[in-house]
Order: sequence, then structure tokens, then C-alpha cells
Amino acid sequence: MLFKDITIVDEEFKIKEHMYVGVKDDRIAYLAETMPSESFGEEYDGKNKLLIPAFYNAHSHLAMCLMRGYGENLPLMTWLQGRIFPFEAHLTPDDIYYGTMLGIAEMLRFGIAGTEDMYLNYDAQARALIDGGVKARYAASVAWMDNTSYFDLPIYKDALESIAKYNNYDNGRIKTTFSLHAEYTSTEAIAKAVAQAAADNGSSIHVHAAESQGEVDICRQRHQRRSPIRYLSDCGIFDVPTVAAHCVHIDDHDIEILKEHNVTVATCPKSNAKLSSGICPVTSLLEAGVNVAIGTDSVASNNNLNMIEEMRFFNLLQKAETLDPTVITPEQTLYAATRAGALSQQREDCGLVKEGFKADLTVIDVDQIYMKPVYNMLNNLIYAASGNDVVLTMVDGKVLYKDGEYPCMDIERIIYECEKSRARILGAINAVDVPDLSVK
Amino acid sequence: MLFKDITIVDEEFKIKEHMYVGVKDDRIAYLAETMPSESFGEEYDGKNKLLIPAFYNAHSHLAMCLMRGYGENLPLMTWLQGRIFPFEAHLTPDDIYYGTMLGIAEMLRFGIAGTEDMYLNYDAQARALIDGGVKARYAASVAWMDNTSYFDLPIYKDALESIAKYNNYDNGRIKTTFSLHAEYTSTEAIAKAVAQAAADNGSSIHVHAAESQGEVDICRQRHQRRSPIRYLSDCGIFDVPTVAAHCVHIDDHDIEILKEHNVTVATCPKSNAKLSSGICPVTSLLEAGVNVAIGTDSVASNNNLNMIEEMRFFNLLQKAETLDPTVITPEQTLYAATRAGALSQQREDCGLVKEGFKADLTVIDVDQIYMKPVYNMLNNLIYAASGNDVVLTMVDGKVLYKDGEYPCMDIERIIYECEKSRARILGAINAVDVPDLSVK
Repeated sequence: MLFKDITIVDEEFKIKEHMYVGVKDDRIAYLAETMPSESFGEEYDGKNKLLIPAFYNAHSHLAMCLMRGYGENLPLMTWLQGRIFPFEAHLTPDDIYYGTMLGIAEMLRFGIAGTEDMYLNYDAQARALIDGGVKARYAASVAWMDNTSYFDLPIYKDALESIAKYNNYDNGRIKTTFSLHAEYTSTEAIAKAVAQAAADNGSSIHVHAAESQGEVDICRQRHQRRSPIRYLSDCGIFDVPTVAAHCVHIDDHDIEILKEHNVTVATCPKSNAKLSSGICPVTSLLEAGVNVAIGTDSVASNNNLNMIEEMRFFNLLQKAETLDPTVITPEQTLYAATRAGALSQQREDCGLVKEGFKADLTVIDVDQIYMKPVYNMLNNLIYAASGNDVVLTMVDGKVLYKDGEYPCMDIERIIYECEKSRARILGAINAVDVPDLSVK
Repeated sequence: MLFKDITIVDEEFKIKEHMYVGVKDDRIAYLAETMPSESFGEEYDGKNKLLIPAFYNAHSHLAMCLMRGYGENLPLMTWLQGRIFPFEAHLTPDDIYYGTMLGIAEMLRFGIAGTEDMYLNYDAQARALIDGGVKARYAASVAWMDNTSYFDLPIYKDALESIAKYNNYDNGRIKTTFSLHAEYTSTEAIAKAVAQAAADNGSSIHVHAAESQGEVDICRQRHQRRSPIRYLSDCGIFDVPTVAAHCVHIDDHDIEILKEHNVTVATCPKSNAKLSSGICPVTSLLEAGVNVAIGTDSVASNNNLNMIEEMRFFNLLQKAETLDPTVITPEQTLYAATRAGALSQQREDCGLVKEGFKADLTVIDVDQIYMKPVYNMLNNLIYAASGNDVVLTMVDGKVLYKDGEYPCMDIERIIYECEKSRARILGAINAVDVPDLSVK
């Protein structure tokens, strides 16, 4: 495909108008101000369009799309114990497959090419991510509090099997990882064993950390006054490439540890607000040089995968929190939603519109009343655009979403199966195990 | 028009499916679960659609659409003195007319039927609001620091002329008001005179109050340690129906004053975040029984009029700020964006989907991947929908926006004129009066 006479965000996150971008196989093979002499097949008219690096979601639980809007305005423990856990107890691998597919469709609709996905079933997650066509690193998360050795748990065998079957599938599009759910859902022996397994397999780790103040307080009680970040570091979790989701309640010493170990912080501004966890100190993390990428968390606490909206929360919440309107530029914001997420998965050749890079690209229709007038298109993108303005999402050179259509997905079937799962599970829950928790 | 077999948000902000809503002239004349026997003309298929009361914007400066994205990431005073004020110095009434029209088009695109508009020119604002077809109460704001009597200022004569010419125009669609810009841009004599003029004319007042901590500190120094709310109350501003925008930095005593005088607080969550003003204590205001309505402020500090996005910020910021996920329900959120704004303009028969009420209605297309599955449609609207899902906006029974079209506006002309204004003014500014302030 050749994007003709289009405005782009270049590798330095600057706007360039009237550019020509040619895609050959899975890469950007041409980028210049003039028409190429060679043909790149289909030509895409760049009039009123903005071409940006496709978004990378740094923290998702895609299958939880099944639980969108299921329980709102509840205290955290009521929500988890009265809603989420009972629902999850009924999930089959097929539910997880179709829930993940629904999440992938939504990723594509909002211009997201890749994600770091944590959920409950290696195989079902992998099958969906392979079929859905997106880039992903994925794991089922380890939450285990008794004395069984991690190496005796079925999930360890699942991890090894998944690595053998799917790691680097489709030319590196799919990657496996290890996941520790969190400090508060595991023992020290489990945490150390997961770190060991990841190191032994040359792999990486995806973990929740310092999401709420309560988590930090209890961690300090249990682990010799250490913060979750310090504790996880001591367990060896950060000795492999790690994505630490949330990091809302962290201090300067935690930030030093994160920087020293090149940990990526996956900040989830909307989810942290909705669950009343707080606001991640992104400004301080960026000043310290930490790689900060943006995640959506699950839609059960978001409630969408709209990355343009997520960028807006990311940006504005820092200005509200620091009381300094000069913090977090539009460029830093788009970087956190694109390149930073690609780097968190060691995808050095992804996340930029740059010749030779993988063709993970998103096209925004900027011919909108709320995008006029134009002083600077990047300002308009970060502060005014809508997630719905995404009109094309390309992953590894393949168009997976265009103008409302998903050329590689049976979207009706996915929605049908998700509605069926929802109805079946709700029926089972209402029949047996949940007290009345009317949605306020 | 008859909305057939459609899901609605009823007068108690509950979801009702399979409803029939008939509009005759400017009112909702029929609302029931069955087809009416009489004809209402055009029939609208309600499949996959949600009918809600149209939004009311409680605080806007529509003409500032001309300045969208003009200067980002700047300290407040640099932004005002280096960008906004120099730009505004070049505005002609025609610029204001077309800028306001652009804002009206954006209101309609995002399902907003009415607004409370404050800007610089009574006549230009009025002409645009009349031509644009929306409901509005409007005023040019008084910012005056010398000893001239308010009653000798041209703006006082403009106000009287505007009342004579336009107040209650088109069956009450247009209303005039008085506006004091703020405590910090006026003298006590001016504030008292504006209050007097509003009372003498049986009118109302629109004012900025307690937007930043700095404003509060300086007000206390200047006015015997009184807060802006206390001071404005003492000046008589709250003796007429008043909309007080922002109210970010207020204490319990201020909240009592606001409640006692039935002042509407127009909270602007995105603008307050973007300008680093802080977060309005909406939860406390609602607990005290104050009428809290949602405003967008201008797009120069927002940068759009996307009310669904604004509702999401309104809701999530309270959860982040109070650290209590149970505060601010979806129902309270939609009320603040609709009925509360209608009531702030004393439009008792607006802002609800209710038989006999004015037909100010918005239709949302809920057939979106990010709105599936459905547990509760109101949860999906508040937490997952996109502003772009608005497919129809009706004001006083007239369809002013439908599926990307504006049947009563020459949208191309409006955009053309705004681009022309922008280019002319930027040229003049660059030529004479502004230091280099590159957008970071």
C-alpha cells in the first residue's frame, strides 16, 4: 500500500505534511516527500488524513470485555468478590477466546496494533491473539498463596507449553511472557520462582504493582517495611525485562529502582481514576528517565479501549495533579501511547513511522468540525480528536480495520458468542452464588 | 417526528426499552410503550439507538473555537498574555459571529442543545445563536478595573439593547443575561452595579468564581479575607439566578452560600485539569444539594465540546479525587449534563425526556463494538460511549444535526470564514505584537 500526500507524525514526533509512505510486506519501505518510482500496490488518498504510529497498549485483560459495565460504583472488594470473581469462576476457554477476540476488534477500531495481555488461560489467549492478527505479548497470571511450589503448578507447565508452541509465532508478532499477578496475591517463594522461570527461559515478566495505597501498606507490613517495588526487585522480578502496571503509589526510591532495572511502567489513568486508586506520578517518572507506556487495563474498570481518550486522561491528569500546565507535552503523550509500548516488548523496530520499521500504522480522519481550525495537528490530536476518528489500522503491513470493516474477522460471530457467554454466566451466577448487588 | 421502538432514558434517568416518542411542534407530545394512533410525520427507526435528553452546556465561550490548539503547555499568564489576549485584540464582530457559529456546529455534532455563553460582543453572539438554532443564554462579560461607573460603560448599553432586541426571542429559545467576568477583573463598585442591573431587569448573572488558588488568595487580600464566593454574595451577585463557573477552590462555608442562594455551579472538569486549576469538589456540592451542571469552558482550554467525554472526566475525576469509587453515579452524571443545565437557565420544561417537555433530544447510536455486551445501557453511555456516537440532535422539535449533516447551516462557509479569521489575526499578531512563544 502507498499512503499518498498524507500528513504524518515523524520519528521525532513532529508533524510533516505532504508525505508519501510505501509499505512492502510487513515494513515501511519508503518514506519521502515525493512519489516513489516503484509501485506499492493499492494507493491510499491522504487528503484530510493523519498517519501516526499505531498505538501499543501496555496493560490489558482483553477477555474482560465480557464484563464491560457489569457492576459500577461499587467499593473495590464488593466489585471483585461480588461481581468479577464469581463471573470469572464460570469462564470456559471458549469464553476467554471470544472475549479476547472482542477486545482485539475494539483495539483495532481504536487504532491499537499491539498489547501486553494478562489473563487466565495461556492457550485460549494465544489462539485469539493469533487469529485476531494483532501484535501481543501475553501470559496467564500467577495468583497463588499456599505453599505449593510454582514449578508444580499447572500454570507453570502451561507457560512452558505456550513458549514452545507460540513464542515468536508469525515472525515475532506473538510473544509469550511470564506473569506474576501481584505481591498481594502470591507468596515470596512464588514470586522468586516466577522470576527464576522467566530468567531461565530468556523471557520477561508482566506484573501489577503499587496500584492502591492499601496494597502498599499491607506489603510493608508483610515484607519488612519494603514497598511493593522494592520487594519485587528483591525477588528478582526486575532482573528480566518487566512491565509493571499501575505504579500509582510509589516514592522516589521506588522510581530509582524502576529506572535502574529499565522497568516499563504501564500507567492506566482511567482505570486508576475509576477504581479510586489515585493518579500515577508520571511526571516524576519521565523526569527520572523511566519508560512510561499507556495501558487501558480491562474494560471492566475503564470501560473502553479508546486510546485517544486514554491519552487525554494521561495528559490532563498530570496537569491537574502537579498544578503545572507545562508538564507532559503532546509529543510525550503520543510517545507513551506508541513507541514506549513497543519498546516495552523489546520491539526495537516498531512504534515509529520510519523507513525500515514494521508497518504498524493508524490513520486518523482529521476532517472533523472539532479539529478546526488547525494551528498544530498534534495539539488537535492529543486535545481534541475522538477515538472514533481512526479509519484504518494496519499491523505488520496488513489492513485489519478500515472504515468500520474488519476484513480478517467475523465480527458478528464474535459479538454473538460474547452475548451468549454473558447470558449463560449471568444465569448461572444469579441462580447460585451471588447476593443482590443492584447496579446503582 | 415519531421515534419508534427506541430505548430511552426516562425522566428518572432510568433505561426503558421499546418506547415510542412523538414530537409535535416544539414539544414531546407522546411517550408510551405502544404506537400512537395519531401521526407525527416522519418515523425514526429506534433500532440500536438510545434517546436521551439533549445536553446543556453550562459554561462556554463559543467564539474561542477560533483559538483551538493555539498555544498549549504554557503557564497560565504566558498563555493569556502571549496568546489569548493579543489574539482577542484583533477580533471583529464578524470573527465572533463565525467563531460562535463554529462552536454551535460542534455543540450540535456532540448532542448539545443549549448553552450558557459568555464572550465579548452581545450583538455578534446573539446573531450567531439565533441563526444557529440552539438554545442559549448569553452575555458579553464585564471586565473593568478603573473608576468609571458600570452604567456609563458601552457594555451596559449593549446589555440593555440586547435585552430589548433578543431576550426571549423565538419563544424563549434565546435569553440574555448579565455577566461579570470575575472578582479579579473588576472593582467592587462594578460588581455591585452589575448585580443591581441584573436585579432591575429581572435578569440573571453568569460569573467566573474560585477557578484557581491564586485567585482565592488575592481575593482574600483585597476584600477583608473574604473568599470569592463570599465576596460575590456580599456584592449581591447571587440575589438573582446565577451560574458560577468553576468553583474549584471553595470551602464548606462557600458551599453553604451557594446552596442558600440556589446558585448553579458550572463545573468544567477538563478545562480545570488542562489549566492546572485543580478539581472541583463536586461530590461535596451534590451532597449539600447544590445544582451542579457541566460546562466545557472554551475549546482553547479543553479542546473540544464533546459532552460525553466531559461527563467521563466529571465522573472519573471525582472517584480519583475522593478515593471513593461509589461517588457520582451514572444517573447523577447524565443529570448534570442535561437537566441541571436546563434548570440553571430556569427552563423548567427542558432537559428531560418527558411528555409535555420541550423536544430537545439527542440520539446515540449504540451499535458499537465498544458498547457490547450490554448489562446496563446507562453504564455503557457514561463509561464507554464516544461523543461521535451522537447521530441526531433536535432542538425545540427541529432536527439541527443528523448523520453528519447540518440541515440548517452552511458548514463549509463557517469553516472557511473561521480559517480566514485565524490566518488574518495570526498574520497581524506575528507582524506586530507578540514575542516568540513556540508551541512546545
